[in-house]
Amino acid sequence: MMEDRCCHRFAPLSKGRIEDGCNLRCMYHGMKFDQDGACIEIPCQDTIPESARVRVYPSVERGGWLWVWMGDAAAADPDLIPPVVGLDDPDWVLKPGQLDYEANYELINDNLTDLTHLGYVHNNSFGATEEWARILPTVRRTERGIRVTRWIPAGRGLSMKEDGEKGLADYVGLDWAQWNNSDYYAAGVLLLTSAMYRPEDMPADGKSQPTAQPVNASFSNHILTPIDERHTRYFFSFGPRAVDGDEQMALGLVEVAKMAFNEDRVMIEAQQKIIDKGAPNEVIIKADVGPVQMRSVIRKLIKAEGGETRAADAFTTEPGAETMPA
Amino acid sequence: MMEDRCCHRFAPLSKGRIEDGCNLRCMYHGMKFDQDGACIEIPCQDTIPESARVRVYPSVERGGWLWVWMGDAAAADPDLIPPVVGLDDPDWVLKPGQLDYEANYELINDNLTDLTHLGYVHNNSFGATEEWARILPTVRRTERGIRVTRWIPAGRGLSMKEDGEKGLADYVGLDWAQWNNSDYYAAGVLLLTSAMYRPEDMPADGKSQPTAQPVNASFSNHILTPIDERHTRYFFSFGPRAVDGDEQMALGLVEVAKMAFNEDRVMIEAQQKIIDKGAPNEVIIKADVGPVQMRSVIRKLIKAEGGETRAADAFTTEPGAETMPA
Amino acid sequence: MMEDRCCHRFAPLSKGRIEDGCNLRCMYHGMKFDQDGACIEIPCQDTIPESARVRVYPSVERGGWLWVWMGDAAAADPDLIPPVVGLDDPDWVLKPGQLDYEANYELINDNLTDLTHLGYVHNNSFGATEEWARILPTVRRTERGIRVTRWIPAGRGLSMKEDGEKGLADYVGLDWAQWNNSDYYAAGVLLLTSAMYRPEDMPADGKSQPTAQPVNASFSNHILTPIDERHTRYFFSFGPRAVDGDEQMALGLVEVAKMAFNEDRVMIEAQQKIIDKGAPNEVIIKADVGPVQMRSVIRKLIKAEGGETRAADAFTTEPGAETMPA
Repeated sequence: MMEDRCCHRFAPLSKGRIEDGCNLRCMYHGMKFDQDGACIEIPCQDTIPESARVRVYPSVERGGWLWVWMGDAAAADPDLIPPVVGLDDPDWVLKPGQLDYEANYELINDNLTDLTHLGYVHNNSFGATEEWARILPTVRRTERGIRVTRWIPAGRGLSMKEDGEKGLADYVGLDWAQWNNSDYYAAGVLLLTSAMYRPEDMPADGKSQPTAQPVNASFSNHILTPIDERHTRYFFSFGPRAVDGDEQMALGLVEVAKMAFNEDRVMIEAQQKIIDKGAPNEVIIKADVGPVQMRSVIRKLIKAEGGETRAADAFTTEPGAETMPA
Repeated sequence: MMEDRCCHRFAPLSKGRIEDGCNLRCMYHGMKFDQDGACIEIPCQDTIPESARVRVYPSVERGGWLWVWMGDAAAADPDLIPPVVGLDDPDWVLKPGQLDYEANYELINDNLTDLTHLGYVHNNSFGATEEWARILPTVRRTERGIRVTRWIPAGRGLSMKEDGEKGLADYVGLDWAQWNNSDYYAAGVLLLTSAMYRPEDMPADGKSQPTAQPVNASFSNHILTPIDERHTRYFFSFGPRAVDGDEQMALGLVEVAKMAFNEDRVMIEAQQKIIDKGAPNEVIIKADVGPVQMRSVIRKLIKAEGGETRAADAFTTEPGAETMPA
Repeated sequence: MMEDRCCHRFAPLSKGRIEDGCNLRCMYHGMKFDQDGACIEIPCQDTIPESARVRVYPSVERGGWLWVWMGDAAAADPDLIPPVVGLDDPDWVLKPGQLDYEANYELINDNLTDLTHLGYVHNNSFGATEEWARILPTVRRTERGIRVTRWIPAGRGLSMKEDGEKGLADYVGLDWAQWNNSDYYAAGVLLLTSAMYRPEDMPADGKSQPTAQPVNASFSNHILTPIDERHTRYFFSFGPRAVDGDEQMALGLVEVAKMAFNEDRVMIEAQQKIIDKGAPNEVIIKADVGPVQMRSVIRKLIKAEGGETRAADAFTTEPGAETMPA
């Protein structure tokens, strides 16, 4: 991907014209660049200075999204791209969506790594119950992220919506035990598998991985791209397993998800505004285990790259602090 | 009144849910608070840390408004609430309104404590004449404010509106001597009684308190709540004595007032923008006696509380300066 | 022209009332000023302080615009007003327009002193071809500006628009040699004469001034008034010689120009946003000769007045640098 700034007079190259199939002409004064960012034509001039070049970022298409490496190009490593499920994956039927938040991406990460809020924020959209807040998830570190899992016993996580509109229960059923597995990859990707099981297939400890076949399953990619400190673009896709549903069902799930994400957005943007006024120390509770681990992973990676973490970071308490779950 | 910020993750408690009639649950992660601000429930957790508490401000309902004490709770004193006239006062028939200004509250205080502007700014809405600028008011200090009074001789303060719409004269009459008594209470409350008298009942000195019974009278509360340095919420109510008019008349007066306050707003917001560009020293005139005394009261109270007044305060000249009325 | 700020309480004098034909009353508290800015009336007060005065800027009406001298009034010199062509000039039929840019005026100056961009930015509106980028203009310094001239050989600068709308060619013809003469006057005025000649009347060197009579000619004034560092008001007028066209044609040309200026605006506002993010060094090319000379003129004049030029000035390379045309 090419920097959106001509090296001549800083005109936006996004308003440029593709020529010869692979080159780009700046449509302000006509400088033309090849796909490595080197200027190959300056109207009215034969000599092209060595400095006439725009930055090109290593980028890879994966799962229907373009993954751009913003750092040192030599260190670009496509293996670091999380295993997102693409729109063309034969095992799933996913449909995409996106929305913008006026909030820092970490506040959305908090939301995604802690589903405690489902019964409070998404009772209307998903038809979720407060049971989500009463059961602690299991959280463990992974190589560059965390895995958050949680069983909700049969019939307790979802309710039918009263208004006649469709909630999650209309798509996945009301009477099953629900297993959620959220794989968070730093800095802003979360892959969520949600599967429904026969009540007898839920493990006795209420924590272990499922071993039986699910009744049905759905999957969602959540990809956060910071625009700046206070704005984030949220890309997502959502849908059922191919054996459980079709495009129609995927579109229905995306509609429900959009309603839910807008509920999140209202809450998170309000939270951001409050934080911007200068928030004092916060109280950490057991349910914060996901967000706390998530932030710890990010800080560790930033330090490993020699970067500085913000002094004003929320949730800076290291895991293991007294209020954390044992 | 409770701070609009959960002590957990700074979610807005204004989006919370009232439970048990008197408690509030944060609708992001479900923490529940009693009316003293103490957390009484954390989902998924038995122990509640002492620090899990949100600030509660002492507040009292008076005259239809909620009066919130923002400072040290121990010092809260309901006797400091100005004697506003409530919507349910049997002697008056008042109707309420409110609007927001993009301006510091002191600029609105200036406007309220100096009615010189009536003939210039409110000739269209109130039908006021320039006579208001030609007669100096009498100003004296009160315990925590000032009292500004002014007689306008019979038939000189108001005119009938030419456009057929109703101005003040339609409600209070054109031929009376008008007595205005504005009681300003720091920091942002002004209570205005306006009464019409038979010409022969106006005192010879044109300054003394009226002693006769008025032909009719109206009353207005003006309550300014700073939102921030550049925004103010303006609450008001307006209407006639119960013996002089009914709800219909009160509603008519509020309509006229809204038109007038919007005329003020346009002027004051423009004034704020000009000041924001960095205004030099201003010229103080005799008619400024109200605003100058008002600002002096505020500064004195701020100093008494150990606070600092802004260096950029306008009107910082102490009363008694050469251009002030003797 | 009078400063838009009353010396009393900084109310906007633009909301004032003209009295006595030549005086202005502030419509907040009623102070009245004569045309020299001296206060001549304060309601309720006989003595008028010497300091009661608002600044008046020397100003002259010329060509339908008001020219305001913002600096030391004693140094005001009407001879410095560029020789704009007025709407009432008998030799031309001009019609006016204006628009606001969210950009520094120098970026618009760049655009006006370098018509390289015509084929890229204005192919749609003007029907201009990329030939404009392939032919270097001739630039020479003038007393307080620069003159930029350029011949485009017959039939190569304009094309008919494909969409059936009118482009420049519909007004000035397609088959002529085109001579453009742009006279830039610091800081923000550019007067552009564009004339069409028979092919045989274009000088052999493709650079000399025309000597024959043109087939037709049009003229445009471009006047940039900075609002602040990031906003500029753009006044212009455009039209044919009186012998070549009428008001209808002038209005048509203004319509085409508005479309073109909006194309410029989109590009320049995007450029400004990119620069605001902190732009690195830029590459200077031969086609920049106009803008580089223009900026050099401005910097020289600022220095002559003892002012400071911004460190972040773009295009600070002095003319004669290696990448400049010989």
